[in-house]
Amino acid sequence: MKTDTLSARPGALICSIESSPSDPTGPRFRIEDVYPSLESGRYAVKRVAGETVSVWADIFRDGQDQVLARLKWRREGAEQWHTVPMRLDSNDRWLGTFTPAEPGWHVFQIEAWTDQFGTWRKGTLLKKQAGQDVSSDLAEGRDLALSLMRKDSAARQTINTAETDAALLLSDAVAEAAAQTDLRPDLSRSPAFPLLVERSRARYSAWYEMVPRSQSKVAGRHGTFEDCIARVPEIAGLGFDVLYLTPVHPIGQTNRKGKNNSLAAAAGDPGSFYAIGDSTGGHDAVHPDLGTIEDFRRLVETCKAYGMEVALDFAVQCSPDHPWLAQHPHWFKWRPDGSLKFAENPPKKYEDIVNPDFNSADRIELWTALRDVLLFWVEQGVEIFRIDNPHTKPLPFWEWLIREVQDRNSNVIFLSEAFTRPKLMKALAKLGFSQSYSYFTWRTTKHELQEYLAELTGFPERDYFRPNFFVTTPDILPVQLQAGDPWLFKSRAALAAMLSSNYGIYNGFELLEHEPLLGREEYLNSEKYEIRTRDWDKPGNIKSYLATLNRIRRDNAALQQTANLRFLTVNDDGVIGFIKESVDGANGVAGAIAVAAAAAEPREFWLHFGDAQIGGKPVAAIENLVTGEHRRLEWGGIRLRIDPATGPALLFRCLS
Amino acid sequence: MKTDTLSARPGALICSIESSPSDPTGPRFRIEDVYPSLESGRYAVKRVAGETVSVWADIFRDGQDQVLARLKWRREGAEQWHTVPMRLDSNDRWLGTFTPAEPGWHVFQIEAWTDQFGTWRKGTLLKKQAGQDVSSDLAEGRDLALSLMRKDSAARQTINTAETDAALLLSDAVAEAAAQTDLRPDLSRSPAFPLLVERSRARYSAWYEMVPRSQSKVAGRHGTFEDCIARVPEIAGLGFDVLYLTPVHPIGQTNRKGKNNSLAAAAGDPGSFYAIGDSTGGHDAVHPDLGTIEDFRRLVETCKAYGMEVALDFAVQCSPDHPWLAQHPHWFKWRPDGSLKFAENPPKKYEDIVNPDFNSADRIELWTALRDVLLFWVEQGVEIFRIDNPHTKPLPFWEWLIREVQDRNSNVIFLSEAFTRPKLMKALAKLGFSQSYSYFTWRTTKHELQEYLAELTGFPERDYFRPNFFVTTPDILPVQLQAGDPWLFKSRAALAAMLSSNYGIYNGFELLEHEPLLGREEYLNSEKYEIRTRDWDKPGNIKSYLATLNRIRRDNAALQQTANLRFLTVNDDGVIGFIKESVDGANGVAGAIAVAAAAAEPREFWLHFGDAQIGGKPVAAIENLVTGEHRRLEWGGIRLRIDPATGPALLFRCLS
Repeated sequence: MKTDTLSARPGALICSIESSPSDPTGPRFRIEDVYPSLESGRYAVKRVAGETVSVWADIFRDGQDQVLARLKWRREGAEQWHTVPMRLDSNDRWLGTFTPAEPGWHVFQIEAWTDQFGTWRKGTLLKKQAGQDVSSDLAEGRDLALSLMRKDSAARQTINTAETDAALLLSDAVAEAAAQTDLRPDLSRSPAFPLLVERSRARYSAWYEMVPRSQSKVAGRHGTFEDCIARVPEIAGLGFDVLYLTPVHPIGQTNRKGKNNSLAAAAGDPGSFYAIGDSTGGHDAVHPDLGTIEDFRRLVETCKAYGMEVALDFAVQCSPDHPWLAQHPHWFKWRPDGSLKFAENPPKKYEDIVNPDFNSADRIELWTALRDVLLFWVEQGVEIFRIDNPHTKPLPFWEWLIREVQDRNSNVIFLSEAFTRPKLMKALAKLGFSQSYSYFTWRTTKHELQEYLAELTGFPERDYFRPNFFVTTPDILPVQLQAGDPWLFKSRAALAAMLSSNYGIYNGFELLEHEPLLGREEYLNSEKYEIRTRDWDKPGNIKSYLATLNRIRRDNAALQQTANLRFLTVNDDGVIGFIKESVDGANGVAGAIAVAAAAAEPREFWLHFGDAQIGGKPVAAIENLVTGEHRRLEWGGIRLRIDPATGPALLFRCLS
Repeated sequence: MKTDTLSARPGALICSIESSPSDPTGPRFRIEDVYPSLESGRYAVKRVAGETVSVWADIFRDGQDQVLARLKWRREGAEQWHTVPMRLDSNDRWLGTFTPAEPGWHVFQIEAWTDQFGTWRKGTLLKKQAGQDVSSDLAEGRDLALSLMRKDSAARQTINTAETDAALLLSDAVAEAAAQTDLRPDLSRSPAFPLLVERSRARYSAWYEMVPRSQSKVAGRHGTFEDCIARVPEIAGLGFDVLYLTPVHPIGQTNRKGKNNSLAAAAGDPGSFYAIGDSTGGHDAVHPDLGTIEDFRRLVETCKAYGMEVALDFAVQCSPDHPWLAQHPHWFKWRPDGSLKFAENPPKKYEDIVNPDFNSADRIELWTALRDVLLFWVEQGVEIFRIDNPHTKPLPFWEWLIREVQDRNSNVIFLSEAFTRPKLMKALAKLGFSQSYSYFTWRTTKHELQEYLAELTGFPERDYFRPNFFVTTPDILPVQLQAGDPWLFKSRAALAAMLSSNYGIYNGFELLEHEPLLGREEYLNSEKYEIRTRDWDKPGNIKSYLATLNRIRRDNAALQQTANLRFLTVNDDGVIGFIKESVDGANGVAGAIAVAAAAAEPREFWLHFGDAQIGGKPVAAIENLVTGEHRRLEWGGIRLRIDPATGPALLFRCLS
């Protein structure tokens, strides 16, 4: 699987329109404002397999001639194009649609040409209607039809024998035969626009983040893959479909961190699982205490049997004991005194890890090795990767890596864990990440959530940025959860699961774990640095609440997208109202969710449906998705009561 | 001047960012959302010489490293780039500015690279502040400084002798010397974005459209260039600066049109001046009855002496008697029976003209000949062309032609007379036309005008589409003027002259000519088909009104732009309020203009200034630009009275 050179990177598309090779004077048509496209085709827009792609473009040329246009599409590398005619919508805007069946990188392109026979036919009919002599026009039309029609065209034979019979020449049959011409005068082509088609889990997924070494049932014992396997039925029963594991690799000894990120590890401290690699192996090895690679594969298989799949964490950094340091010292940075340059973000230091140097002279070897790590795990059955801190590695690396992997297996999904500046976060999504971490964790008021979701579901973000709303992560215990209010845990879960079709929790969330490092949004006694043992059925857990949210998501196609979100008006700043419609219009879900606010008191409010429609019809009634209760709308809305203590979200199926 | 081949056409720019040639792994930076640009650089944005160009871009790379960026610009073909540093504004958005002094096609490009020394310096300072040991950092910094600094740098000598003196290494002087490096790690370049810089008349002009043969003082006699010359002082006195002549070429005899576009010309009918060419010459000849080419040149010179210039009409079509038909029969279309194919737009026919065939096998010869026609007139001193019906000829032809002419004389201005579908009109402006006819003629209500102007002064139109508001043309007598109300003529002139910095009238407008062909928006007895003789001082004329409008435009820089238009709130649907500010903020003009409405009755209303500022200060008072009267604003506005019968527009200079 090793290669010496990098294959050509994507993205070097030409902006300008191609003209027919026979025309040295430039393309006659303008094909502009093509939708969907990102930065004139520099980046791919995203869809999922089986989703219809509607392609819009302004298509025009000079003058009044009749125009024909078609849409071509194919999987990259495929020999044959699929073609579909485009139709004029209005004001020079044209539409064509297609539905890619399989995941993979695709391209589409628009072709336009002059409909010479149609132009002749329209003009001649107008002249006839105006009572003008069209004998010369008929002679022209006959010559034109003969020049355009295919030699084997049946209609061509009738023309040959028909001299200048007006009715025949102006008939639909002749027009259709002439339109089938391979001669397409003034043929102009748009650039080929890239389209990344992924499997549906890229758009709709519920993640359960698990720390494998904390899954043992025996206090203090290092968990194993076997322990993880034992938990699969429970987690699948909660309705999660992605079991995301923090790094499963050997952990370095040098500068190993102790509890609560202390510099000195005590004896028996397991170290941070992000300090990857020791003498037994690196990114393609498993931690001996977790088990063997065969055990890991059994975990993968068990998940599959339960309708779930495993996602792995891909963190590029190495512990100083990682085999690569000895094997490939040039992949790393060394200080003038010959010592290793540890990772740092001054004045913060990360003494237990070193970052490979993406600028090193051997970077092609490094990039290739990193790719091969992913391909190794793909061979073990892993098709989802959560990428740690991608924003601290060169963007071209990710663009190259994602293509390299997806060109070999187009099912692979990449989640970008980039908590960084907004444009850098978006750039990672543009270059190919399937899903992205977001600012959801820090958007807590109704106004903040509405603003942020409006941004993510607007143009152009909706075409390339798929947020994955994590309520917590091993790094982040948001301040609003630190008091441990059950209703706020439920509220955050409902907001994440309903507003975004991709969402996730980090193990312990279901148990309302909430003890922070004082003054920080971090966990006390974080299991990044120690082994935890939990009672997964601890009283007060909200597992049944999460199971209900996930069940409602599965039962309602409307919730399996994010960009279809619309907010509904609610006369309470503590309650957010929303509605979503499935692509086919057959399913609609509306809801009202109480957000983090000063008081957890019961509240009554109106949920107004405004002009919202489902399946092209106004919403007339709603069915409570938990209780089954039906209620009719009055005055375009409905009066509701939320008691956060019993449940901060009311969720409804829309009825017409 | 003849050439056999077409030079390369513009517009084949690459979308993607160039990386440093030494980096095979792709550019490290993203340089995105560059403003000003059109369609990722496919088309040029427009500015005028002496106008500052502010260039904005999102510039970022992975990680937290310090970044440097600069803006490069040059006239196309110039060897040297000018460079200016860019500065970070906020949120990864950078700004750089430059001011091109001369007209011409320019390009600009952005370069970004990693500030390695700045990154080291910032990190080391943070570590020092945190009390960490930085001795190894200082050794690194010293190596880095030495590797970056130019050999001849004075600061380099101090480093060489200074070992690892922290204060020196961290000094501003060393940082500045290191920033002057020619080594720019991770150097990434944006595409080169095109910029069309034109002379200021492209942005600010007042056109007087004149039919030369109607300028005789003797009824029925064919006017001459001498007659035109005689009128120059008067027209210059009215404040117009472009004297636009309808075609001055010989007129064909074959199928010559008679009065009111009748098919049969009577003896002595002069024919349509758009039926260009007869046995004496074509597009590079003058009509013998107008005079000689030397007479024409004297007209050009006279205009110059009066601060005006001549604009010529460029209409591609030919009369059947044009010399080209015999010399280059292959440039034209012929019917199967061997007869000439006249121009038509079925069922309408134009029997007195034929259109060259832009698709003919000899089209390169044809394109070159048409270019040489323009270059001939440029040699006669003409630097403005009004292009007749450009939307019926191939767009690549215009894109090529404009470049061909402007590459030889960058003063040449092109006005597009395209009354067609909006996207086609805009496409012509994008490909290089300096000014464009617009829908102004058919935008008569306050709402229509505000909507339309908002479109033209919004993004991206403001960067490429410069409207020229003609109140009338030989083809268009708008319905609202057909009753001959003087106040409506004044209103339309004031709207055109104030809302758009480019505007024009067609001769006779100042005399309130208004007799239509019944039920049409066309003139009765149009001088397109006959010679007219007028009393240019006819009682009731509005010449002094036009002179005042033009004087106010000249005195107020705020009116010499269009995109600076903002509408003010007026509590009367019959009155439009506006304000404009000059680039330097030193001049502001506000106004209220009564638009075409049911009644010409006096009206009183409030003109509200809202949050409008001039020169960064709220408007406190206004000075009437006609009467000189000063008034202070009250409650953020002013109460005004317009009596359309005396004058439909109130125009003010804003005072702070």
